[in-house]
Amino acid sequence: MTWVEGAAGSPYGVHNLPYGVFRHGDRAPRIGVRVADFVLDLDGAEAAELILAGGALRRPVLNEFMALGPGQWSAVRARIVELLVDEEHRADVEPLLVPLAEVELLLPFEVADYVDFYSSEHHAANVGQIFRPGQPPLLPNWKHLPIGYHGRAGTVVVSDTPVVRPCGQRPTSDGPVFGPSQRLDIEAEVGFVVGVPSALGDRVPVDDFAKYVFGVVLVNDWSARDIQAWEYQPLGPFLGKSFATSVSPWVTPLAALADAWVPAPDQEPAVLDYLRDVPHLGLDLRLAVDWNGERVTEPPFATMYWTPAQQLAHLTVNGASLRTGDLYASGTVSGPDRRQVGSFLELTWGGTEPVSVGEDPGRTFLADGDTVTITATAPGPDGTTVALGEVTGTILPARSVSPVAVA
Amino acid sequence: MTWVEGAAGSPYGVHNLPYGVFRHGDRAPRIGVRVADFVLDLDGAEAAELILAGGALRRPVLNEFMALGPGQWSAVRARIVELLVDEEHRADVEPLLVPLAEVELLLPFEVADYVDFYSSEHHAANVGQIFRPGQPPLLPNWKHLPIGYHGRAGTVVVSDTPVVRPCGQRPTSDGPVFGPSQRLDIEAEVGFVVGVPSALGDRVPVDDFAKYVFGVVLVNDWSARDIQAWEYQPLGPFLGKSFATSVSPWVTPLAALADAWVPAPDQEPAVLDYLRDVPHLGLDLRLAVDWNGERVTEPPFATMYWTPAQQLAHLTVNGASLRTGDLYASGTVSGPDRRQVGSFLELTWGGTEPVSVGEDPGRTFLADGDTVTITATAPGPDGTTVALGEVTGTILPARSVSPVAVA
Repeated sequence: MTWVEGAAGSPYGVHNLPYGVFRHGDRAPRIGVRVADFVLDLDGAEAAELILAGGALRRPVLNEFMALGPGQWSAVRARIVELLVDEEHRADVEPLLVPLAEVELLLPFEVADYVDFYSSEHHAANVGQIFRPGQPPLLPNWKHLPIGYHGRAGTVVVSDTPVVRPCGQRPTSDGPVFGPSQRLDIEAEVGFVVGVPSALGDRVPVDDFAKYVFGVVLVNDWSARDIQAWEYQPLGPFLGKSFATSVSPWVTPLAALADAWVPAPDQEPAVLDYLRDVPHLGLDLRLAVDWNGERVTEPPFATMYWTPAQQLAHLTVNGASLRTGDLYASGTVSGPDRRQVGSFLELTWGGTEPVSVGEDPGRTFLADGDTVTITATAPGPDGTTVALGEVTGTILPARSVSPVAVA
Repeated sequence: MTWVEGAAGSPYGVHNLPYGVFRHGDRAPRIGVRVADFVLDLDGAEAAELILAGGALRRPVLNEFMALGPGQWSAVRARIVELLVDEEHRADVEPLLVPLAEVELLLPFEVADYVDFYSSEHHAANVGQIFRPGQPPLLPNWKHLPIGYHGRAGTVVVSDTPVVRPCGQRPTSDGPVFGPSQRLDIEAEVGFVVGVPSALGDRVPVDDFAKYVFGVVLVNDWSARDIQAWEYQPLGPFLGKSFATSVSPWVTPLAALADAWVPAPDQEPAVLDYLRDVPHLGLDLRLAVDWNGERVTEPPFATMYWTPAQQLAHLTVNGASLRTGDLYASGTVSGPDRRQVGSFLELTWGGTEPVSVGEDPGRTFLADGDTVTITATAPGPDGTTVALGEVTGTILPARSVSPVAVA
């Protein structure tokens, strides 16, 4: 039982303890861990030698700490629990608790490469039916490998960063025209953050997932469907995605999700050896998407066809190396029901079946000023709940169509 | 006229002066500039206050220097020329010249995001004819926008790094099988290195290319055609490309290429306003591809349909920000003739028309032990030639198919 006020019964109790980076007043960014409605200043804790991590907690991003590997991750987590539970530490530690309301949360790690998978069967089938009606909903390769592509790491932003409506080319019957996207969408996803790097030419076996992956963030992979539809043949999405990808400020360590593993959907046909994970487990993360404060869908991550361990094994099977800070996202999380989908493309069936949001009965894609917030919870130990923070963003109008000159 | 031995008449004379990072003996990596067959130690030059760049030349990579912008780039370049030309500086500067043969050349900059375009009309049309015979060689979007995608920045390696043959899934009539790629290929490209960052939400006008781009590298975008063919629908190339991308160790500054700009091919249909560059100029870079020491093709960069300024304007038109160290490559450079193509896929027409290499009359794709070297030259001032260094790599056999466990 922790002595921290409000932690008992909180989904951010000592069973959770996600890591982030915060700014408090005019001090430089610091690493912290969330407990209840406080941030424990880990920079201060390491400076005071309450925790020893070789200085890795005294940095402005999590990368150096994440590179230390599972042994150190466990040791630091155990020590944080000790500090927050033992009354004897209270006098030293309490001054290091900063009220969450007083801090600004920053991008918690420097993103190395960003990969986005496409691993929900329901999502892939929905997209197939919307864009290729009358044809098989899945392409022939889909059940043989976790389809993925590289996104733009430099435009991964932390939750709460406003998203400027992108401009680009969209097709019309008279050819392409240039202007603000008319079909701006979300993609509710779960992202996995790599801590331990690997060597070029090596591969990460499917069983070694937990030796490399540090934790989990929530991801909103904002997507301009009209730009994407025109540009994506034959090399995949580019400007339709690269304008912004938002992530939650809290990285939930895998250790906090130990009770959330559940059998993943059976895979038929059988996968190739390098993708065979035994046991074949996914995470029971329950996502929720709020559109202007109204709950519109609840995507169940446990329904994902490809598991995060399979994704990592696939990503590296060609010898591609991992770097600390690599982020790979699951792809849009969609369950079997319409109110379980992770995109408005699916929710409104390609924009043909508007939904009611607030007092507007006819919403399809995102309007300027709209705010979308994705949250998630998972089962924790002893009947507790683990909250995974939130990723939120508000759409700003497109900027002047005429380019802005630089001095 | 420079006092540096061998510089007169060299394509690495004082009209060129490409930047790189070198290791000499057991000293830490340093920034240098190439002149003739020497590397001028710029770390030493700044330490000795022979050049002033605010310490940006005293770093292990070029990024901080590249971020300074065109004014500083010009000033430093002018000062280097002064040091190498004026006899009065010779006594101070000569000790800072390290013989090229004594140094190891390293990756010259930390790669932020890596984008690969697809901007040669001849290449795109060849690929279309090989993979979609009987259909229009270009897809409908190709002449409206420079098609591109994001690659893996973490596996961009410097020239001379061995390339391990990647394993992956390739399709057979019995379904996909796993194993070493059977169709390993090259792509001869030119890469543009961004120095000055831009803000998220802004765009870079097509006329502002030279305010952001620092210089040029040669790129070999190694490609496993069988892996790529099976995986690329619908999200584009992934593991077929991400195992390695090699770049030349020398970054040729734009200033060295001032005499290499030539009119680019006319564009019809007319492009949208944000892509209209006046004048519409490409670079007269003459590439050459040597396969095991034998010249097999000479791709002419001047034939590229989309210019580097158009690529940069497109890349940012959705508000995607630039970071120092962003690398965007042209896509495979292919001219109209078979001996001007930038890939072996084209040279051997999908592997159906083998070519003679050395004593072997029947070569198609890369064998283990093969070495490919790409070089390039451009016209310099007063009839001189500018050499762009080389990017070379040798294929190592695939590693054991069974995954290697980590401790």
